[in-house]
Amino acid sequence: VTVRLVGAGPGDPGLITARGLELIRGCDVLVHDRLVAPELVAEAPGDALVIARDGTGQEALNRLLVELGRDHEVVRLKGGDPFVYGRGGEEALALVAEDVPFEVVPGVSSLAAVPAAAGIPLTHRGIAAEVRVVTGRSAGCETGPPTTVVFMGLESLPEVRDRLLAEGYSPDTPAAVVAHGTTPDQEVVVSDLASVAEDAAGLSAPALVVVGEVVALRERLLAGQPAAAGAARHSCAA
Amino acid sequence: VTVRLVGAGPGDPGLITARGLELIRGCDVLVHDRLVAPELVAEAPGDALVIARDGTGQEALNRLLVELGRDHEVVRLKGGDPFVYGRGGEEALALVAEDVPFEVVPGVSSLAAVPAAAGIPLTHRGIAAEVRVVTGRSAGCETGPPTTVVFMGLESLPEVRDRLLAEGYSPDTPAAVVAHGTTPDQEVVVSDLASVAEDAAGLSAPALVVVGEVVALRERLLAGQPAAAGAARHSCAA
Repeated sequence: VTVRLVGAGPGDPGLITARGLELIRGCDVLVHDRLVAPELVAEAPGDALVIARDGTGQEALNRLLVELGRDHEVVRLKGGDPFVYGRGGEEALALVAEDVPFEVVPGVSSLAAVPAAAGIPLTHRGIAAEVRVVTGRSAGCETGPPTTVVFMGLESLPEVRDRLLAEGYSPDTPAAVVAHGTTPDQEVVVSDLASVAEDAAGLSAPALVVVGEVVALRERLLAGQPAAAGAARHSCAA
Repeated sequence: VTVRLVGAGPGDPGLITARGLELIRGCDVLVHDRLVAPELVAEAPGDALVIARDGTGQEALNRLLVELGRDHEVVRLKGGDPFVYGRGGEEALALVAEDVPFEVVPGVSSLAAVPAAAGIPLTHRGIAAEVRVVTGRSAGCETGPPTTVVFMGLESLPEVRDRLLAEGYSPDTPAAVVAHGTTPDQEVVVSDLASVAEDAAGLSAPALVVVGEVVALRERLLAGQPAAAGAARHSCAA
């Protein structure tokens, strides 16, 4: 009785994660997007309920996941990664609101995998050290500043902070540092841009820094995630 | 006698791709980064040569891959994704230069997976529709403008072009559109920012748009990739 939001990867069925494939093979119910590889849908057990979401609006889909999640092991199979233009956060919040446990199983986003399949690396020494990700459909939807993700930023957090402040981010923008992410040693510090360098001083590399209003979703989303994330340190400045 | 540049994912060994795991299990030689999960290294066959690259500089590593790739099925296992701050492009170019075939097998980047493990979606409707990815270590390395990736941008390519031009991208910045990426239906159009909207008019969704100087690496990298990418349409404006 858990809903797993599983990333199916960019198209090639071989690019699903080992864990995602295992969950599909053990599910009672599979709810999948249209663009998910049919080979992956075929991995569900023969007696599983398989639902294509074609034509189902997001609100109705959220309600469906809540209903099914109360009594079943549900895999919600989404193209790419659930948290990169996947609306996984909306589905997760709907589950949290109804006390249905959920888990997010990341997938290979099209972001780097599709360019790679065409022979294009997103970053390359001496050519490009930064990536910007936008959507052609965001125009109609009012949103705030972009989320900024910093790789290898732990040692240079004061410089990162100064740069983002200079670019116009507010000092009270929520900021998180996640060290040893996805492993049993994961540690999370949640703070704001002004204080994150000091608050994260005790962490060790590797660590990823996330700056943006999405960080504030963490507390709402974690209410529904009893697993790994709950064990993480949470020194919240808010 | 191929070198596979395989993304190991963000840390959790369950987040390697199914294809990546299969390749590890069938390799002759495994060359892995320090931060790769030991559970994945242990999946190599008992008689495989396993090499940790600790302390090996990038130049020496490139030469090692070339030497081993001439006679062996080599898996080069890298943390995260090979083409997101993974220096996979450099290793690939070294292999191309010596006519050693290679393949890139994308992995789950820490980019979205690590925030997800901490309960943070990178994008969320009404909160953030864009993501910026930077590194804390780029300061010492001169690079050009960021790579821009556009999701769901095929229908709005003229608007995307106008926006990027207004932001200061040169009209002759290399640009690619990849439709149905990583699948047998993959189609690629390579052009420049000024012409990409016209040149990609015949493609169908889903498609990803990539704008930046990294696109120009494609021709050099594809010389070493005889597989899927070679079957793609290549209408190069350059």
